[in-house]
Amino acid sequence: MKKKFKSIAIYSSISSSKVSQIALQLEEIINNLGLKKITPASSSIKTNSKLKKHTDKYIIEKADLVVAIGGDGTLLSCARKFGSKGIPVLGVNLGQLGFLTDIAPEDLTTSFKEVVNGKYSLDYRSFLSAELKGLKKKNIALNEVVIHSGSIAKLIEYELFIDNCFVYRQKADGIIISTPTGSTAYSLSGNGPIVHPNVRAITLLPMFPHSLNTRPLLIDEDSEINIKICNQGSVNISLDSHNKYKLRQGEFVTLSKAESKLTLIHPKDHDFYSACRNKLGWSLGIPSKKHR
Amino acid sequence: MKKKFKSIAIYSSISSSKVSQIALQLEEIINNLGLKKITPASSSIKTNSKLKKHTDKYIIEKADLVVAIGGDGTLLSCARKFGSKGIPVLGVNLGQLGFLTDIAPEDLTTSFKEVVNGKYSLDYRSFLSAELKGLKKKNIALNEVVIHSGSIAKLIEYELFIDNCFVYRQKADGIIISTPTGSTAYSLSGNGPIVHPNVRAITLLPMFPHSLNTRPLLIDEDSEINIKICNQGSVNISLDSHNKYKLRQGEFVTLSKAESKLTLIHPKDHDFYSACRNKLGWSLGIPSKKHR
Amino acid sequence: MKKKFKSIAIYSSISSSKVSQIALQLEEIINNLGLKKITPASSSIKTNSKLKKHTDKYIIEKADLVVAIGGDGTLLSCARKFGSKGIPVLGVNLGQLGFLTDIAPEDLTTSFKEVVNGKYSLDYRSFLSAELKGLKKKNIALNEVVIHSGSIAKLIEYELFIDNCFVYRQKADGIIISTPTGSTAYSLSGNGPIVHPNVRAITLLPMFPHSLNTRPLLIDEDSEINIKICNQGSVNISLDSHNKYKLRQGEFVTLSKAESKLTLIHPKDHDFYSACRNKLGWSLGIPSKKHR
Amino acid sequence: MKKKFKSIAIYSSISSSKVSQIALQLEEIINNLGLKKITPASSSIKTNSKLKKHTDKYIIEKADLVVAIGGDGTLLSCARKFGSKGIPVLGVNLGQLGFLTDIAPEDLTTSFKEVVNGKYSLDYRSFLSAELKGLKKKNIALNEVVIHSGSIAKLIEYELFIDNCFVYRQKADGIIISTPTGSTAYSLSGNGPIVHPNVRAITLLPMFPHSLNTRPLLIDEDSEINIKICNQGSVNISLDSHNKYKLRQGEFVTLSKAESKLTLIHPKDHDFYSACRNKLGWSLGIPSKKHR
Repeated sequence: MKKKFKSIAIYSSISSSKVSQIALQLEEIINNLGLKKITPASSSIKTNSKLKKHTDKYIIEKADLVVAIGGDGTLLSCARKFGSKGIPVLGVNLGQLGFLTDIAPEDLTTSFKEVVNGKYSLDYRSFLSAELKGLKKKNIALNEVVIHSGSIAKLIEYELFIDNCFVYRQKADGIIISTPTGSTAYSLSGNGPIVHPNVRAITLLPMFPHSLNTRPLLIDEDSEINIKICNQGSVNISLDSHNKYKLRQGEFVTLSKAESKLTLIHPKDHDFYSACRNKLGWSLGIPSKKHR
Repeated sequence: MKKKFKSIAIYSSISSSKVSQIALQLEEIINNLGLKKITPASSSIKTNSKLKKHTDKYIIEKADLVVAIGGDGTLLSCARKFGSKGIPVLGVNLGQLGFLTDIAPEDLTTSFKEVVNGKYSLDYRSFLSAELKGLKKKNIALNEVVIHSGSIAKLIEYELFIDNCFVYRQKADGIIISTPTGSTAYSLSGNGPIVHPNVRAITLLPMFPHSLNTRPLLIDEDSEINIKICNQGSVNISLDSHNKYKLRQGEFVTLSKAESKLTLIHPKDHDFYSACRNKLGWSLGIPSKKHR
Repeated sequence: MKKKFKSIAIYSSISSSKVSQIALQLEEIINNLGLKKITPASSSIKTNSKLKKHTDKYIIEKADLVVAIGGDGTLLSCARKFGSKGIPVLGVNLGQLGFLTDIAPEDLTTSFKEVVNGKYSLDYRSFLSAELKGLKKKNIALNEVVIHSGSIAKLIEYELFIDNCFVYRQKADGIIISTPTGSTAYSLSGNGPIVHPNVRAITLLPMFPHSLNTRPLLIDEDSEINIKICNQGSVNISLDSHNKYKLRQGEFVTLSKAESKLTLIHPKDHDFYSACRNKLGWSLGIPSKKHR
Repeated sequence: MKKKFKSIAIYSSISSSKVSQIALQLEEIINNLGLKKITPASSSIKTNSKLKKHTDKYIIEKADLVVAIGGDGTLLSCARKFGSKGIPVLGVNLGQLGFLTDIAPEDLTTSFKEVVNGKYSLDYRSFLSAELKGLKKKNIALNEVVIHSGSIAKLIEYELFIDNCFVYRQKADGIIISTPTGSTAYSLSGNGPIVHPNVRAITLLPMFPHSLNTRPLLIDEDSEINIKICNQGSVNISLDSHNKYKLRQGEFVTLSKAESKLTLIHPKDHDFYSACRNKLGWSLGIPSKKHR
């Protein structure tokens, strides 16, 4: 039996009646269980409750669990906001299973009770941290950092260094640097490999590279990645398709594993491969061809 | 300064005048340095020396370094034979750089002296271990295990389990399970990702899969992989394209990280990414197209 | 309204009760319609009928339609045997839709009546023809010709010439040369493109190539392809995974479009893209990720 | 012997000293041969000559050959401007060979004399034509039409229809529709196949598709493609990375082969596969690995 949760914040980055409905249901369960419910002011949830809304700072101090209601997007912002400060995160999805949100609305009451009573499994996820000139604090991404030209079919040119070793100079529309968590997101659309969450690796995947011999490259998550911009004009850096910065010719971005990790809470029956089968259609396959 | 080497075995799986010539040169250097040279009976090297040839057992007891002369193939067999028993291995290639052999013949005298005097870097590589019915001892592979139908365009069907979780049931010509060391070998030809040697992961890559939604899958190297054969007729298992076994419908093969690791010795200036640039043509790229 | 059919042969390369059942049903429809039914001796169908079985030569002279009952494999052999001699072919599948067989058993009576009465669409498919030393007559394939080492992870080396121009010298496990019809078969498993049946092109796809810069190559179907074997030892040539020949070092195989075409008969509502959606799961996709 | 050329326009979209130098050299050859030289006002070439500059309309009426000096970009704009009006185009590249420009500066005098004297080969290339609401005239592309979100990692959603048949509904960053000429340009970076210039096909290639089962699709060049925008917000259409238009939800773009073709002039020794070897590094390959 693991640690029980007592002080629970409810978060969503989406404002919809479906989210509000789940939030209300959750509030009731929390009240019935005699636990404390905290409402983050930064959430998009519209509640009828007259409860005071709390600052992120307060949540980080007081909550011992944040429940994120929504899709993987809500979970990503919740992870960056509260998860990176050490608060465990539990994801409730809106209907369809996500890779990060694994309680379905219809299982909410049962699953949630089990979790707060200590029946859950823990899953630690690394963040990528980006450091660049003009940026006072480090910025983090749970899925991926994308360095790109800002428009399609426009090349950037960069030099890649890993642990101070030169790797290659490349022309491409961009490059995706992703965590195992991000391996089932944008990187997968670009033909990147699927990386199990407990592999300690970072995937580098050039986008529309201007050479035929590039392949996805996986490196140890403790490596330091430096990317130097070589083309004229500015280049965009985006973290989880969210925070966006610009770099100019000759400037560097340094990427490495963030110091903090996300603690993701799963119900007992969680299984990464089951999520793959559901989300990626692995149970299907091309119907059998007799002639082969 | 690292440990100095004093008792050196010279090995090759190739029998050629080029190999003999390098072996003689190496013998001379060893003699001049006052070190002990041991000749494995299992090597293909034809020497003029009247030195007694020694059993593998003797080598494993007495040698503190084995020098493998040849291509990656010689190094693979040397690694399975001596490396898996704890003897460090140093690779001397025949003209062109390999991913595993990194002393060029022309640098032999200088590089070898430096290495035996303790100027080298250490690189630990995992072996894959295969366990199957009817096989008394575990068998190991440094590059990859391939499970396949034994002929082209002929499907096998299997169920994949990782750490006792069902992953998928798949029809394919076969599946490649490779170490990071193997990621630049057969797996790469099948469009697998490049995995840096210090990433602790295993890559699973279906060959000509009968579905469009499979992707390479990377899992933690401490995982246990079970593959159950579902098709009628026998299926082949090959380790480093070398040892070959058969499995029948309903039978399992269990793959996991071997207990022992290979200790690969590199000259001081060794660099994995430099090997990639040389071997994979990364320095090249499509010449610039102005219109992009 | 197109030509009506009057003299119908029923063929299958599979011997099963399901096939026999469909054959009997078809026989009844043919009798009811007052048409002539011919039974090929080369078929695997076990009928109760005491009708005389006819030689392939007789069928080719007398039949104006051959109905192939089975999967794509039956249709391939029917196409090579009768289709290549100018007899139109109609495919009845066993339960699941194929790319070549497009009458489902439950639609048999309705669809078949419409077809014999002239309500159908015509679809002409090219065969590939292979010519090699020691082979008296040309051999044909409807899907693909595969040139390969005969075992997995074993390289062949060849030189490719198209219309007498040198293209490249390549090391690979093999090469797949496919028609548009074959683009949804083995070539697709090897990551080849999908080519609509009315594109007049041949696809060349190296298998596990020993270089990172190969891509599928599409050439005009009127091109002549010559492949010269450069490696020692023999190399296998397989046509539709069926006929198999061997080539030795220095020998050539010449591939070109066969003179005859297959006339494939489709019910009126046939649609290639609908077959793609059904067989390849195009209607599905990864469920939406909100954060993108 | 083919038709000789007498009235020659010189064009470039690049303004550089290298281009001017080649233009001057070409002017001298034209004068020495007693031919007529026409200067397009729309070119970027800065000449010292006091010759009157001519409108595109004049060029289209009077010139029987346009020489494009530059990279593939210059040739693309020259092809759209003059080639689409029936004027043959000859490409002189700046140092490195392109897929479209195949006279090297050092061979200029010899090759150009041969060409104007009728020693050349003809190569006809199709343009793609795009028709959309609010656009009075059709717009053309020699390489590709790209329909995309306008930024990276942002999905568009569209329905694809070919010859009025529904193909699929897809979420992706965009889709590339390319001619065989474009198959060695942007489409190739996105892992599309190489299509020989004389294959009469169009390639459709989704960019970062939101499903794992898409593949490049090749259709007959006489097909009509309709793409309906399904997502909210606007979508960008770009032709040869040049002309750019916007489409809104519910709107269509219709793509088909343009009526006019480009007549590309090649010196006698031109060879598409030789260009592939040079540009794509096909002569190289991974150096042999002994263990395979």
